[in-house]
Amino acid sequence: MNLPSHGANPSHLYNASGIARPDHVLDFSVNTNPLGPPEWLKEQWGRYLHTIEEYPDPTGYKAVMSIADKFDVAYDQVLLGNGAAEIIHFIARYTAGQHAVICTPAFSEYEDACQAYGCPIEYVPVPISSWQLPIDELVEQSKKAGVIFLCTPNNPTGQSFNEKDIVSLLDQTRHSNALIVIDEAFYDFFGDESLVKYIAAYPHLAVMHSMTKMYSIAGLRIGYVISSSPIISKLKQYRPHWNVNAIALQVAEEIARDHAHAMKTREMIKGERERMKDLLEKLGFLVLPSAVNFYLLKDPQLDNQKPILHFLLERGIVLRHTENFKGLDGKWLRSAVKREKENNRLIEALKEWRNKC
Amino acid sequence: MNLPSHGANPSHLYNASGIARPDHVLDFSVNTNPLGPPEWLKEQWGRYLHTIEEYPDPTGYKAVMSIADKFDVAYDQVLLGNGAAEIIHFIARYTAGQHAVICTPAFSEYEDACQAYGCPIEYVPVPISSWQLPIDELVEQSKKAGVIFLCTPNNPTGQSFNEKDIVSLLDQTRHSNALIVIDEAFYDFFGDESLVKYIAAYPHLAVMHSMTKMYSIAGLRIGYVISSSPIISKLKQYRPHWNVNAIALQVAEEIARDHAHAMKTREMIKGERERMKDLLEKLGFLVLPSAVNFYLLKDPQLDNQKPILHFLLERGIVLRHTENFKGLDGKWLRSAVKREKENNRLIEALKEWRNKC
Repeated sequence: MNLPSHGANPSHLYNASGIARPDHVLDFSVNTNPLGPPEWLKEQWGRYLHTIEEYPDPTGYKAVMSIADKFDVAYDQVLLGNGAAEIIHFIARYTAGQHAVICTPAFSEYEDACQAYGCPIEYVPVPISSWQLPIDELVEQSKKAGVIFLCTPNNPTGQSFNEKDIVSLLDQTRHSNALIVIDEAFYDFFGDESLVKYIAAYPHLAVMHSMTKMYSIAGLRIGYVISSSPIISKLKQYRPHWNVNAIALQVAEEIARDHAHAMKTREMIKGERERMKDLLEKLGFLVLPSAVNFYLLKDPQLDNQKPILHFLLERGIVLRHTENFKGLDGKWLRSAVKREKENNRLIEALKEWRNKC
Repeated sequence: MNLPSHGANPSHLYNASGIARPDHVLDFSVNTNPLGPPEWLKEQWGRYLHTIEEYPDPTGYKAVMSIADKFDVAYDQVLLGNGAAEIIHFIARYTAGQHAVICTPAFSEYEDACQAYGCPIEYVPVPISSWQLPIDELVEQSKKAGVIFLCTPNNPTGQSFNEKDIVSLLDQTRHSNALIVIDEAFYDFFGDESLVKYIAAYPHLAVMHSMTKMYSIAGLRIGYVISSSPIISKLKQYRPHWNVNAIALQVAEEIARDHAHAMKTREMIKGERERMKDLLEKLGFLVLPSAVNFYLLKDPQLDNQKPILHFLLERGIVLRHTENFKGLDGKWLRSAVKREKENNRLIEALKEWRNKC
């Protein structure tokens, strides 16, 4: 069985698993905001129609300025991408042929992009129990690496690295050739604080954000990276013309000024995440602590969790397998935190699983 | 004056020229359909809202199948891009480091992409008077090249190569290592016939199309390339995940089945193009014959056409400068064929220019 390498698009998982897809599917494999896009975006959808006819501004000026204002950085410190996935490819192109270091378990796109650009990859495992940044090993690796990828809060574990440890890594690598790429795709599920504040002090730091997750606009494709202007200027060389579509540019400009949706979401997510942890633990599952809108869980009675994945797929519930996450290797499942009613359906199905065992 | 390297987005041209942008601007520098998107697309806009929430299908299966059906090719012979610009970058990545040959004058994105991937570029000029494919020189170049780019009907000249000459080039290069990339972004302004029909016989042929021009959806970003499955499979390696947004996927699937819009457009464009040629020639301008929705023109009394470009900019009319098109070097201007009323405004402004001289 060749499982898809990403969550979302559950049809691919059903096809790969050979299980008939039920009419109604609850997708806990996708990590976007269960509240959906902000109401204003849906209400004003008609306003975006006019944007499709004209070429998008290739510089994305207004969207870039809106993001730059939000983080108090300059216009030339921000680069927009057709989703964060494209940014990752620009970075891999930038370090083409040099060693790439990936803290694992990690989003598989770092690896895919590095392979596409001939970067030999070194994996540095992070123990999921302590979730402590392996500073010494990363500093050692930075001596020959062109780039180090780390993700915090981490996808797929949901855990955050200690900020002091990150600063220590930045300090100890500042004279290396390695670009330190921190993927903060989920930072705003945790709070308003971003590591972007360290860009001024560390020109070899690049922080990636996505608007996809919090604003539930995965279909639109918009992500960005903030770094020192020399790094941004180099990454721009690899950008195809008009790489961000016009609707995404308009929405990004408006979303960068929105705070209400993130605040409301964080409150809801926190409550549901804690409630689910309690309920799942009562059912005998292990649940890792999480700072964001997804978490890892496992039935400790199983080594590989595939039987639960299949049991749930048959009931129209899709969790994220972890077969292609190094260090997890199918021994955990990842679940999104959704709304109360949907989360309850997961609990009901897992009760059924428990009773069956 | 550092003029922008592409048409459209006239604000950049106004900024670069130091001319105040009037409130109303008629943009003849953009090559999209002056009739706009199909009516059904605008009427059904509300239907696309639901696509933004979910990740796009990373394989774009339904859109690919719709395009494959239209051209009678297989699923694995089509690759979608975030606009044709992204496809050009995949091709440049595929031939990274190898020689690239570009028939000039040409769309500047071939050159930009080849430079981003370290391909030394050989330019093969096509005489704009005869517009004959320089077969012998291209065959000679193919011996050391990884890729040959040619565009027909050509942007910016509007002229088509003789089909027999293209087949002769394909025949004589079939045992070379060169991929022959034919950019047919404007083919459907000329007719329904595409060079895609030669893919089966020539596995080293790749034909690029854009949906942007005929369907006036430049803001959405969608293009594709059709080739033999081994070439498509190699190009796919360089594709970031979810590279085509969900609205573009849905619209592409529907547009590939639409014929009425192209037919109606071709009829209108042909009439207006011929009418404009007559009127411009009566005003003493030289106008190159064109097969599509734009044409080259010049005032034979001027070598460089910048004075006309500026004269028109001041009157809110934007033509495309040709400063960065090798072989044109500012000696021509490119104008889109727009609707009767808009074309008449161009004529009026050029009459004014003539009277002034």
